[in-house]
Amino acid sequence: MATKKRLYGGETAKAVENFPISGETVPVSVIRWLAAIKGAAATVNGELGKLDPALAEKIAAAAAEIRAGEHDNQFPIDVFQTGSGTSSNMNTNEVISALTGGAAHPNDHVNMGQSSNDVFPSAVHLAALEETTRTLLPALTKLEKSLTKKAKAFEDVVKSGRTHLMDAVPVTLGQEFAGYAAQIRLAKERIEATLPHVGQIPLGGTATGTGLNTHPKFAAGVRKILIKESKLRAIAAPADPFEAQGNRDALVELSGALKVTAVSLTKIAQDIALMGSGPRAGIGELFLPELQKGSSIMPGKVNPVLPEVVLQVAAQVIGNDTAITIGGMQGQFELNVRIPLIARNLLQSIQLLSTASVAFSEKCIDGLKANKAGCDASAGNTLATATALNEAIGYDLATVIVKKATSSGRPLRDVALEEGVDAELYDKTIDLRKIAAGNQA
Amino acid sequence: MATKKRLYGGETAKAVENFPISGETVPVSVIRWLAAIKGAAATVNGELGKLDPALAEKIAAAAAEIRAGEHDNQFPIDVFQTGSGTSSNMNTNEVISALTGGAAHPNDHVNMGQSSNDVFPSAVHLAALEETTRTLLPALTKLEKSLTKKAKAFEDVVKSGRTHLMDAVPVTLGQEFAGYAAQIRLAKERIEATLPHVGQIPLGGTATGTGLNTHPKFAAGVRKILIKESKLRAIAAPADPFEAQGNRDALVELSGALKVTAVSLTKIAQDIALMGSGPRAGIGELFLPELQKGSSIMPGKVNPVLPEVVLQVAAQVIGNDTAITIGGMQGQFELNVRIPLIARNLLQSIQLLSTASVAFSEKCIDGLKANKAGCDASAGNTLATATALNEAIGYDLATVIVKKATSSGRPLRDVALEEGVDAELYDKTIDLRKIAAGNQA
Amino acid sequence: MATKKRLYGGETAKAVENFPISGETVPVSVIRWLAAIKGAAATVNGELGKLDPALAEKIAAAAAEIRAGEHDNQFPIDVFQTGSGTSSNMNTNEVISALTGGAAHPNDHVNMGQSSNDVFPSAVHLAALEETTRTLLPALTKLEKSLTKKAKAFEDVVKSGRTHLMDAVPVTLGQEFAGYAAQIRLAKERIEATLPHVGQIPLGGTATGTGLNTHPKFAAGVRKILIKESKLRAIAAPADPFEAQGNRDALVELSGALKVTAVSLTKIAQDIALMGSGPRAGIGELFLPELQKGSSIMPGKVNPVLPEVVLQVAAQVIGNDTAITIGGMQGQFELNVRIPLIARNLLQSIQLLSTASVAFSEKCIDGLKANKAGCDASAGNTLATATALNEAIGYDLATVIVKKATSSGRPLRDVALEEGVDAELYDKTIDLRKIAAGNQA
Amino acid sequence: MATKKRLYGGETAKAVENFPISGETVPVSVIRWLAAIKGAAATVNGELGKLDPALAEKIAAAAAEIRAGEHDNQFPIDVFQTGSGTSSNMNTNEVISALTGGAAHPNDHVNMGQSSNDVFPSAVHLAALEETTRTLLPALTKLEKSLTKKAKAFEDVVKSGRTHLMDAVPVTLGQEFAGYAAQIRLAKERIEATLPHVGQIPLGGTATGTGLNTHPKFAAGVRKILIKESKLRAIAAPADPFEAQGNRDALVELSGALKVTAVSLTKIAQDIALMGSGPRAGIGELFLPELQKGSSIMPGKVNPVLPEVVLQVAAQVIGNDTAITIGGMQGQFELNVRIPLIARNLLQSIQLLSTASVAFSEKCIDGLKANKAGCDASAGNTLATATALNEAIGYDLATVIVKKATSSGRPLRDVALEEGVDAELYDKTIDLRKIAAGNQA
Repeated sequence: MATKKRLYGGETAKAVENFPISGETVPVSVIRWLAAIKGAAATVNGELGKLDPALAEKIAAAAAEIRAGEHDNQFPIDVFQTGSGTSSNMNTNEVISALTGGAAHPNDHVNMGQSSNDVFPSAVHLAALEETTRTLLPALTKLEKSLTKKAKAFEDVVKSGRTHLMDAVPVTLGQEFAGYAAQIRLAKERIEATLPHVGQIPLGGTATGTGLNTHPKFAAGVRKILIKESKLRAIAAPADPFEAQGNRDALVELSGALKVTAVSLTKIAQDIALMGSGPRAGIGELFLPELQKGSSIMPGKVNPVLPEVVLQVAAQVIGNDTAITIGGMQGQFELNVRIPLIARNLLQSIQLLSTASVAFSEKCIDGLKANKAGCDASAGNTLATATALNEAIGYDLATVIVKKATSSGRPLRDVALEEGVDAELYDKTIDLRKIAAGNQA
Repeated sequence: MATKKRLYGGETAKAVENFPISGETVPVSVIRWLAAIKGAAATVNGELGKLDPALAEKIAAAAAEIRAGEHDNQFPIDVFQTGSGTSSNMNTNEVISALTGGAAHPNDHVNMGQSSNDVFPSAVHLAALEETTRTLLPALTKLEKSLTKKAKAFEDVVKSGRTHLMDAVPVTLGQEFAGYAAQIRLAKERIEATLPHVGQIPLGGTATGTGLNTHPKFAAGVRKILIKESKLRAIAAPADPFEAQGNRDALVELSGALKVTAVSLTKIAQDIALMGSGPRAGIGELFLPELQKGSSIMPGKVNPVLPEVVLQVAAQVIGNDTAITIGGMQGQFELNVRIPLIARNLLQSIQLLSTASVAFSEKCIDGLKANKAGCDASAGNTLATATALNEAIGYDLATVIVKKATSSGRPLRDVALEEGVDAELYDKTIDLRKIAAGNQA
Repeated sequence: MATKKRLYGGETAKAVENFPISGETVPVSVIRWLAAIKGAAATVNGELGKLDPALAEKIAAAAAEIRAGEHDNQFPIDVFQTGSGTSSNMNTNEVISALTGGAAHPNDHVNMGQSSNDVFPSAVHLAALEETTRTLLPALTKLEKSLTKKAKAFEDVVKSGRTHLMDAVPVTLGQEFAGYAAQIRLAKERIEATLPHVGQIPLGGTATGTGLNTHPKFAAGVRKILIKESKLRAIAAPADPFEAQGNRDALVELSGALKVTAVSLTKIAQDIALMGSGPRAGIGELFLPELQKGSSIMPGKVNPVLPEVVLQVAAQVIGNDTAITIGGMQGQFELNVRIPLIARNLLQSIQLLSTASVAFSEKCIDGLKANKAGCDASAGNTLATATALNEAIGYDLATVIVKKATSSGRPLRDVALEEGVDAELYDKTIDLRKIAAGNQA
Repeated sequence: MATKKRLYGGETAKAVENFPISGETVPVSVIRWLAAIKGAAATVNGELGKLDPALAEKIAAAAAEIRAGEHDNQFPIDVFQTGSGTSSNMNTNEVISALTGGAAHPNDHVNMGQSSNDVFPSAVHLAALEETTRTLLPALTKLEKSLTKKAKAFEDVVKSGRTHLMDAVPVTLGQEFAGYAAQIRLAKERIEATLPHVGQIPLGGTATGTGLNTHPKFAAGVRKILIKESKLRAIAAPADPFEAQGNRDALVELSGALKVTAVSLTKIAQDIALMGSGPRAGIGELFLPELQKGSSIMPGKVNPVLPEVVLQVAAQVIGNDTAITIGGMQGQFELNVRIPLIARNLLQSIQLLSTASVAFSEKCIDGLKANKAGCDASAGNTLATATALNEAIGYDLATVIVKKATSSGRPLRDVALEEGVDAELYDKTIDLRKIAAGNQA
């Protein structure tokens, strides 16, 4: 894959020198999309008679190589660079020019009809759109399926419900996992709802949104090629060219949806870690797969390592959202110049949520087993089952019974009968499985 | 409006004593929606034969008074209270019981078929849904209209574009305001996209989502009444009862959309403040309405006070979103117990964005006047107009010309001609109005 | 306390009309400090011969009334106002002028030697300094003492340690509470470390930091009076007058320290809620005081309501910190104009942490009781006690023993002996109390 | 530097497989500190008679190689791993064991007296302490010096002050830069104030803080060696062993100080970008060094690329702080298991602030030139100079004069004289240089 010879030119070299900041380059998916745009732009400019057809073809061929990942190592500029991504756009222009043997001028030909100000954010939107569509949403689907499968497998496992962490009326482990699956289903809806905005790209606006130096049919032509090549149907003209160039609101919006997903994953991972806690001194309602030794000092210890990964990824995604939000706030006039920052954080969040969802699904959820004994115990122990008596005996008497059972440690049934509850009524009402089925019983 | 007599009972009094935290009570819109639910619940329970019809009617009548705001002062509990809102639910039960002269038992009758765990979050969702629909979206529409009107009024005012804060190719003030209007239009789309999720209420799940002690037709019946009374058609059953009770993800989602709106407003307000800067030593392209003295020491000073309000509101909304996100992450098992926190921040954000949008629109945007002289000057000064020469003379020669003009301070035209540009070509190409029209010229 | 007659003038009235945003006014502590400054300023200006001594006395007397809280209701302007707080400064000038019967001109006399740009931020710093010193730090001390008392009371209660939520080597409940107490002790150190910066006030810089129109001895004279009156020795000249006027970094710093405190409180409250979980299906190592009914439907339920308050307050403080951070970032040139926003959030955080710490201490920590049976059970159950055997038998054999005990459910001792561990060695080594004492045994 | 042979063992391999998340490994500085601790631990255990002296020496020698960076590529585990860093601790144990030719057992010898739970967080604290002390603080010192030098160089450049972005009383460019320098000086104080807490390491607590399996003199001995080797005198015993193991509050504290630094840098970078705006249609008071072409389409454009880098780095640091804060909140019982997340974000923030401060200093600040013409113009234009007349003519008449000058566009002097101001008084009072000197004039 790697080409050895240095293909980039002087502006790239200057940028490498100017930005010795993080050691981390612009995400490769952005670079590849820049190339895809430039290839399509050359083709369209050729068709519109603005560029010599032979030169257009050369540019398109060079761009296709970059798009295919053959020159990833020719893009050495730090991601913390000029806020417009101009350096990376120049880098792409230079590499394509070099690949045409210098036949194409970096600015006059390769960059024709373009400005960093429209192509760089467009490439970022397209990378985010593609990674979300091709990687993240399938990963969430996989996780949702794993959770749904467990919901089915656990549908008869009755256990204590818990609210405020305190014993509540019984539920089934299956109901809980169905809730988790629904959270992920809703997460997908939330993410998908943002894609029509993410798909709106400022391409064609050039320097400030006016489209100066660009043929009126240029942008539509390029978009058509990009859609055809990528099959990403959400690619669209912007609602307004000035909105699209001066702001990265749609990326802030997508990051916000990822943040809600992180919130959902936090709840799920934390619940599973809590239910797996023990093995003997915790909640003990689930067995998690044992993947590795849990302690360098405590022998035989096993820890919820995948939930911990998910929880850390979630925290990172929420942190990244803060960075993206701040970047999004700082646009001024015709351009937001925090785009590399936004791209870095957004594409990282998409990747982390994707890999973590798949690993969580494969290495944790799929291998979960109910701790039947633990669930039976918690279901049998919760005094909140008394709630089922409310209708027959009233909340006040039920309160008296539960308080007495709590303070004495005696079985609920004994206390209830002592307080005058009819034994037959009690036994008919206090059926854990029926109580867990609630009003579907 | 205010009733004098204390109508609430012992649990409310205990809660007042237990939570001497902020001095701020639960948002009144939540209380009124609690009452609306309880009124409808009584009616439905009456219809389903679970409650004596006369008692149901009494409860409904009492609830209607609260719903109408006649007893707002009977809800003194701090918003920083138990995380389920149980105290406020109990408070509502007690006040309704008192309004029925004690005929209805707070738990057995007023709370029939309900739990704090389903009605309190339901009331918060409904309050958020209503305030967003009835107050925030119309406020944003108003702001959008004001911006659109200015886009029209300013469509012939050519000025310097700016990217990276540096002089760029000319644009019109109208194009900029059309971009701002588009931002607000998109903000509305983002907010609206969340409402189907916000409208899903956990009502009917009772304590843990199972619906124990609730008639299977109860929730649908109550929702039907609420929709009829409120005309809020987004009110719906939850995607999954356990998802809906254990999580407040939809509220985190709505807050996220408000956050993007805050980001958009930040850009708009900041641009307007910058364009109004001066009057003599700043950018000076806009005149903002003079509302009040700007300084206690500098005579005659006028400041962009409304943009500053908007910027502060935006920062608050983003801060509130952090609090909501953290609250949303901390659900455990069958209940999220950070609901009052989430409600406080979310409803505050909705209110602040609403009032600020209206004030911004009425007291600032509507009164904006273009500083024609300032715009003319900036349009005439920007050397980026040379961009229009690219196609004729190439980027490299154009660069030479601009650099020479910059360093010498001489007019662009003089330098261009000196560098061999044809005078006729120059004058035909460098037409500011045409350049600002870009590829629509 | 309340004065009936309207004392404020036209600029105040305009501001009330201009800012119909939140319905919440500027924190009263800021107003009172504005008055304190103005009273001291008049005295000093009198002494320096810039103000007629009689008039100076009148102003000082009027200011003293406001400082004493006698006119709180004369400050009706919304906190979301002009970002410099000029409106509230004008309001104060007007009220003092009115209280002198108009003898003092609001700007020429009451505001002499001052600008909103130096007095308003000074008043915010002083309010934050005072509230932190007089209210928050004592509240944290109280909480620390409560925790330390419990550390002592629980020093012999051995229980299972937990890492990753999984059973770990035994610890004492006392050790855990000593850790919590240390967290609060460190929190106080963190907060105190910021006060020397918070105490640096821009007073004397007037409009931009140059001190134009102010006597060179003015600021020092005013600070001397303020220190004498308030006993707040941290009040000091700024490190640099331009730093002090253009930035509110010291307030961002204080908020950051409050955020760490919120993080600490989150851990403590969450641990206590977890240890109190049950009563029968949870961790069950602590009994929390029962303060109120925990459920409107589940009879006899008791919830950890104070930990929930603390957790919500912590989330709010972290959210407020985000708002403050954003406000702090947005200074430009000689002034940060997000001061009312910063003041609102910072003073709210101080108040919430104070009240919540006191309530947590009095209504929760002080009433905690160890669940001895629960602790005994968890201590006896954790297999991590095998760690104590490492030195004698090696990590690898100990791992075999623990895994076998886990999978079989058999007692650790039985398995250990079966695997060749000497009975005497086992009994000498596996002494829970000694293990919990660790290397202090 | 790189060793070719795989030195790590089975637990490392499992962890690589278990955590295919980010492709990013644990920061190398943490690994090197783990090795430093293990080397010192072996030496101390040898001295205390717990480890064979020859074996101790072998371990120490192996650790020294890792500490020196000779085996960085032997640590392939993803940073998103088990939240305790146990995998990386095991990895280190395995590599050292391999380097001793298997003579030392990874757990029984290399890990002797240690647990992941005390050594991993200790290594993170030490890495943060070292990077802050050796890299960040010197970088900030460099930046402060550059700013101070410019403050001196610009001390006679009078320009318009600006508050609310509006023309205010004149200041000097030197005063502004002295303010920036003071911000960085204070930033250093803030960061340094956290180091005594960061230097407190949980070493010696082993699994839960009790120090089980560790010699009472072990930790002090290891710390002594580490201090001697590293010269980091802040290394210290923890305030409380349970606080130190269950919480990462000190790292949240340090991150908070970095956040304030980011806030300060944001203000400075934004001001400089604004003052450099133009060259003809902006504020135009500073010339920034030209480093590279600013636009792929607009010829001759130069942008404030270094300020943009700083602004993006600042946003990233604030985002990282959110991730760290969330991680810090999620400790439970005897361990916080979000340490790798916290380490990743904190060490990244330290690095980014360091490199960005140096680059900002060298490539931007040092090359700044005052735009004398621009400053003269803004100083001459601001009508706020009228403030200097207040004392002579009163705020009200001065207001009339300024308003008249603003609306008419006429010179302030003409209007003032017309309104009755004495010409001699005017000319004596309105001396820009004197006004800028304020009460130091």
